[in-house]
Amino acid sequence: MLSKNQIKLISSLKQKKYRDLHGFFVVEGVKGVSELLESDFELHHLYETKSDFESVNSKRTQISDKDLQKISFLKTSNSVLALFKKPSILDVPIDGLVLVLDDIRDPGNLGTIIRLCDWYGIESLICSKQTVDCYNPKVIQATMGSITRVKIDYVDLKQFLPKNESIPIFGAFMNGDNIYKKTNLPQHAFLILGNEANGISRDVEKLVDERISIPRFGKLKATESLNVATATAILLSEFRR
Amino acid sequence: MLSKNQIKLISSLKQKKYRDLHGFFVVEGVKGVSELLESDFELHHLYETKSDFESVNSKRTQISDKDLQKISFLKTSNSVLALFKKPSILDVPIDGLVLVLDDIRDPGNLGTIIRLCDWYGIESLICSKQTVDCYNPKVIQATMGSITRVKIDYVDLKQFLPKNESIPIFGAFMNGDNIYKKTNLPQHAFLILGNEANGISRDVEKLVDERISIPRFGKLKATESLNVATATAILLSEFRR
Repeated sequence: MLSKNQIKLISSLKQKKYRDLHGFFVVEGVKGVSELLESDFELHHLYETKSDFESVNSKRTQISDKDLQKISFLKTSNSVLALFKKPSILDVPIDGLVLVLDDIRDPGNLGTIIRLCDWYGIESLICSKQTVDCYNPKVIQATMGSITRVKIDYVDLKQFLPKNESIPIFGAFMNGDNIYKKTNLPQHAFLILGNEANGISRDVEKLVDERISIPRFGKLKATESLNVATATAILLSEFRR
Repeated sequence: MLSKNQIKLISSLKQKKYRDLHGFFVVEGVKGVSELLESDFELHHLYETKSDFESVNSKRTQISDKDLQKISFLKTSNSVLALFKKPSILDVPIDGLVLVLDDIRDPGNLGTIIRLCDWYGIESLICSKQTVDCYNPKVIQATMGSITRVKIDYVDLKQFLPKNESIPIFGAFMNGDNIYKKTNLPQHAFLILGNEANGISRDVEKLVDERISIPRFGKLKATESLNVATATAILLSEFRR
């Protein structure tokens, strides 16, 4: 059985301010929960309708399908929902290729980008303060467990980037240099992707050393832009290939 | 004012069987509707709360915000919803690089892939019969108007592919050859991407000439796979660069 207070706590974690207040975030689904359990993240409590996670016994409550549906953030609830502790401030290494996001608002996009970082071995992801919170349940869902392998920090980009002035800063724009013609892309660099609607903000744009673009091959009157997660995929591929 | 019958017709278009029956599909939003109006697609009727499309007057009804909310498929309705006629069977040219989808189920993925085809100048998209319908409202929403510039057909891949045996068939697999090491990728080829969960089906796999993969750069215990739209982005980029 779930108490009213438990339901209230879990429901509140949809919002960032309550995630910050309580220090927890929600993960749903056997695969996601398993990956988090195997990582450095610390489990707070787990609710399941089956017995997949009996081994975590003291931090586990078996509940009914109906109760799970009550606390689930998904349209069709899975068999498990777990609360993990948000880690305290992470030490995000500024090494190798570091991806920088300037105000990405869509949780699905951020989740896909975190998964891409994991695939391409990008260990550090730096987000502007206005970027969607990486512990948002939709982000967590879209990362498919990759959140355990990518270190993420939220900073003021205008203060952060100038502190690392020896590192070249690449920015993705609609009118930059053709990425396919860049030879010898550096292995140690910042790569900035901007907001879905407005791109990289003015203040951050000023700090960019190299403006790059993915050229369009279609007819003149074509798509205005690529989705930011898609553009990230293509640019990371170019840096890594 | 909207009649009950109009509301019923529009609501029914969420389902493929009614789109096939009535021969219409729904587009929402000023940008999407404008792009469709400028294309070869034929407008059936348009409902708007503002006066952005007064020029199409005989096929236009001004309605209230409340009425638009009733017929909209979006959580937050826009200012316009239009019904367009589904084109009769298209002549999809088998020329250049042709993208082939084997049972893509997620409408957002198909929409993103259509947008990518448009960006990379892929004119022809061949889908298996089980691939999600391209006139699904969520697909239309995700294409951002690109549906007007990509020709799409639904076929039985097992019958279709052998008919074009002079054209090399590339298939994306988890264990294929490293795409980054392929030099001289042909400009005239089929590129097949498979289902989100199961990849390319057995019967289609047999027809593949070249198995390709996007190598993983992360640690060993990393993401199991890339999202299919993301993988399409990277592969099209490699064929076009």
